[in-house]
Amino acid sequence: MKNRSIDLFDTTLRDGTQGEGISLSSEDKMRIAKKLDQVGFNYIEGGWPGSNPKDMDFFKRAADHTFEHARLVAFGSTMRHGNTPQTDPNIQALVRAETPAVSIFGKTWRFHVHKALGIKDEDNLNLIRQSLSYMKENGKEVIYDAEHFFDGYKDHPDYAIATLRSAAEAGASALVLCDTNGGTMPHEVSEIVRHVVSEFPDVTIGIHAHNDGELAVANTIAAVESGCRHVQGTINGYGERCGNVNLCSVIPNLQLKLGYDCIAPEQMERLTSLSHFVSEVANVAPFDHQPFVGKSAFAHKGGIHVNAVMKNPSTYEHMKPEVIGNKRRVLVSDLSGKSNIQYKVEELGIDNEKCAEKIPEIVQTLKKLENEGYQFEAAEGSLDLLIRKITGEWEDLFELKGFRVIIEKDERDEVRSEATIRLMVNGELEHTAADGNGPVHALDSALRKALCKFYPEVDQMQLSDYKVRVLNEKDGTHARVRVLIDSNNNGTSWGTVGVSENIIEASWEALMESMAYFLQHQKITIEKEA
Amino acid sequence: MKNRSIDLFDTTLRDGTQGEGISLSSEDKMRIAKKLDQVGFNYIEGGWPGSNPKDMDFFKRAADHTFEHARLVAFGSTMRHGNTPQTDPNIQALVRAETPAVSIFGKTWRFHVHKALGIKDEDNLNLIRQSLSYMKENGKEVIYDAEHFFDGYKDHPDYAIATLRSAAEAGASALVLCDTNGGTMPHEVSEIVRHVVSEFPDVTIGIHAHNDGELAVANTIAAVESGCRHVQGTINGYGERCGNVNLCSVIPNLQLKLGYDCIAPEQMERLTSLSHFVSEVANVAPFDHQPFVGKSAFAHKGGIHVNAVMKNPSTYEHMKPEVIGNKRRVLVSDLSGKSNIQYKVEELGIDNEKCAEKIPEIVQTLKKLENEGYQFEAAEGSLDLLIRKITGEWEDLFELKGFRVIIEKDERDEVRSEATIRLMVNGELEHTAADGNGPVHALDSALRKALCKFYPEVDQMQLSDYKVRVLNEKDGTHARVRVLIDSNNNGTSWGTVGVSENIIEASWEALMESMAYFLQHQKITIEKEA
Repeated sequence: MKNRSIDLFDTTLRDGTQGEGISLSSEDKMRIAKKLDQVGFNYIEGGWPGSNPKDMDFFKRAADHTFEHARLVAFGSTMRHGNTPQTDPNIQALVRAETPAVSIFGKTWRFHVHKALGIKDEDNLNLIRQSLSYMKENGKEVIYDAEHFFDGYKDHPDYAIATLRSAAEAGASALVLCDTNGGTMPHEVSEIVRHVVSEFPDVTIGIHAHNDGELAVANTIAAVESGCRHVQGTINGYGERCGNVNLCSVIPNLQLKLGYDCIAPEQMERLTSLSHFVSEVANVAPFDHQPFVGKSAFAHKGGIHVNAVMKNPSTYEHMKPEVIGNKRRVLVSDLSGKSNIQYKVEELGIDNEKCAEKIPEIVQTLKKLENEGYQFEAAEGSLDLLIRKITGEWEDLFELKGFRVIIEKDERDEVRSEATIRLMVNGELEHTAADGNGPVHALDSALRKALCKFYPEVDQMQLSDYKVRVLNEKDGTHARVRVLIDSNNNGTSWGTVGVSENIIEASWEALMESMAYFLQHQKITIEKEA
Repeated sequence: MKNRSIDLFDTTLRDGTQGEGISLSSEDKMRIAKKLDQVGFNYIEGGWPGSNPKDMDFFKRAADHTFEHARLVAFGSTMRHGNTPQTDPNIQALVRAETPAVSIFGKTWRFHVHKALGIKDEDNLNLIRQSLSYMKENGKEVIYDAEHFFDGYKDHPDYAIATLRSAAEAGASALVLCDTNGGTMPHEVSEIVRHVVSEFPDVTIGIHAHNDGELAVANTIAAVESGCRHVQGTINGYGERCGNVNLCSVIPNLQLKLGYDCIAPEQMERLTSLSHFVSEVANVAPFDHQPFVGKSAFAHKGGIHVNAVMKNPSTYEHMKPEVIGNKRRVLVSDLSGKSNIQYKVEELGIDNEKCAEKIPEIVQTLKKLENEGYQFEAAEGSLDLLIRKITGEWEDLFELKGFRVIIEKDERDEVRSEATIRLMVNGELEHTAADGNGPVHALDSALRKALCKFYPEVDQMQLSDYKVRVLNEKDGTHARVRVLIDSNNNGTSWGTVGVSENIIEASWEALMESMAYFLQHQKITIEKEA
């Protein structure tokens, strides 16, 4: 039986950046590469120095860093027909990248050999052989990426195998079968990989899947089950079109469900934070419903599910969230009942005995507010305030006396937004004004200004997300709107909600609750420490 | 050989609403149900009347509508132990829903039978038998959902089969195997489904997959390839935790890649618009990288890819995007788009010859505006104005000199919104003011007041829809927002768009364009008639 150890090859920094909306600076790439190394990846593909001059800058920086686990890889194509390796700019850029390993892609599909390269079958085999041999002579480990392998194989199996043969003979350490267009089905992957493995029993065979059929994870698993031991993909599945295969799903499936060895258990626990880190650096909103590592991956909403999960999580969870560094969440909504609130009260650390008799009142208040358009699933800050107010665990730290917002557009088409606020804090009236680039920003600035005098810590917290949903759209401009605001402070984040027919009032409510939540929790922390 | 016709069962309105952040009103549900019917779904599961009173409202509305293709389904659990069907509130709610079909879920896994229900194996079989028989007696088609089927089967195959036997004997038209926790692997699905199909050769077997392992599409395909002919899932894969299986991926895979019959080709072409429609109604940002139907699914960024695709799309596309109503996009060049504009110009009835030379300017302007966050797919009114302005087919019927909006909240918690507007119409300055229940409503009222004197017909038109989307949510309260307004007059409707960091300015822009479009087209109509 084959060994069950898998080589993980990450290409977030190269193929991942082909995704629409993904752009990484060299600095971003360095930060991600260091994390990937810590989590135990075997290879990190950093870029294509021959195609993108920016990538050379990254390889220069990376040369000064010592990676613990990973080998750094530069990517490029086989040389151009008519060149020698010595005169081919792409091959020479690969040498200059000074990485221990390179991955070189070549053509498998005769359609591409003839149409895209405009050369003969045999010429393509020579390009592969010469390009790889030259890199080997230059002391590099060479990984061969067989572009369009599955489409090429289906068109002409013998030629597809012949291209791999050229790469193997030139000394490739791995032959990677790419489903470049992403449309191959799992049963085809299984069949084709089994044939390739039987042809090359002594070379590592790899898989590089794309998600155009929403089958990339299944195709990767099928390939491994059929004998692949080298897996390429990206964090969160970033990549061109529908993305590359998502390694955050492949790794737990292979290791925790199928018993392959990918990374150490303590590295597995960092998978969720790795996923979030990469989305932060790439400045892409994390996908909450992402399997394994998403915020909603272990979130329970239906009352029956919550009730059962509280007795035994395996009733509605396929695995333990902690193993991959994620956590269980219970959502409060009009689909939920008392058990959701009970769970929430415990989570918030509110005195349970005092609370027990208030639970019916809390449930009733929630139902009433949700009927009015409030939603607390993503507004745990507002839910916390509401429960504390009903259970008497709450103290008003400031009181609004009034606000006014003026938005003016003049003849020169310039727009100005100004907010004035009157607040009462500790018996003192504070009257402030501020401009903003919109009315909500102006209100936010004026509120901070007013509170800052009494609670200078408000400057630490930041608003990180602002969402607006029109509830009864059909009512046109006098529809009710719901505003959700996410805030954070030192890595802790909380959401708050406001609802009104007036968008400014709804925004104000969410804004004010955000500050109230923050101040309340600062106070609790200080009291605990004292 | 089995027939290759698949029954499609959509549960977006029921299981889909278990997803975090998904909430649908009865009105929303009706709109989605009508679309699903048009696209050719066989079953539409509308809700759980026994658990959520709001759902009963939907079934009442739906009873007044005639669906062309679909049978409406109400969902519920087997009756509670100790009740009779006549006294069980959940079973009675199912009867009262007055749908032609019901789906009833029951327990497969002995762990759940013992722990969650606290009853004996045999009692559970009786609950299934009695609940289903009663619904059959009430003239319903009954679909049986075997909850946790795969986990239950792995624990005790004979008992799992016995639960299906009870359902089949009670007259279920389909036995649906649910991977409730979403952690089953494709090879397990294949094996288990094959066994079930061999045990029940004369009953339709169904699959209900969840995406916790990012394998829901693969599991559904594996089930169909092993003999399932009934497929449950949701549009865009909405659903609890990581979601249900995404039917927008299952349908093209089954029909276009594997040759099963799901829907007619002209219905297949509506798949992309169905996906976008559901995300709009659910107010969830569409996932651009979604396979098949996503905005990026056929978007090419890399230079080599773009070059090759322009020569022959099959070089880097696994299928033709038009088949599912999607389209190819080229991200680095503005070579695409001209033909779309040409098409649009014809549609708008603008003089084509005058227009031809302006097309590059129109394309360039559109690209620039789309970069700033404008979107014209749902704002054809604004697109019409833009094209008319560039081609000189436009006349300014009013000019803004300035507006001011004041929103005040006082100590008694009362909020007041007032707008003042200065407009120049036919060389005359009009200065008006109006209150509103929010700032946008106030602006709308003041604008109508000002225009009414010159164009009394503005009173005929109405704003019917108002939507707000925050574009760069991570920028908090100074993010850019896009406002979409739909208006109508005598059954004709048009959309307009505004974008700004200031939500009032964005709303103003969409509002003003709506009126400008209306007045322009009134004028064109009058001129034609004259």
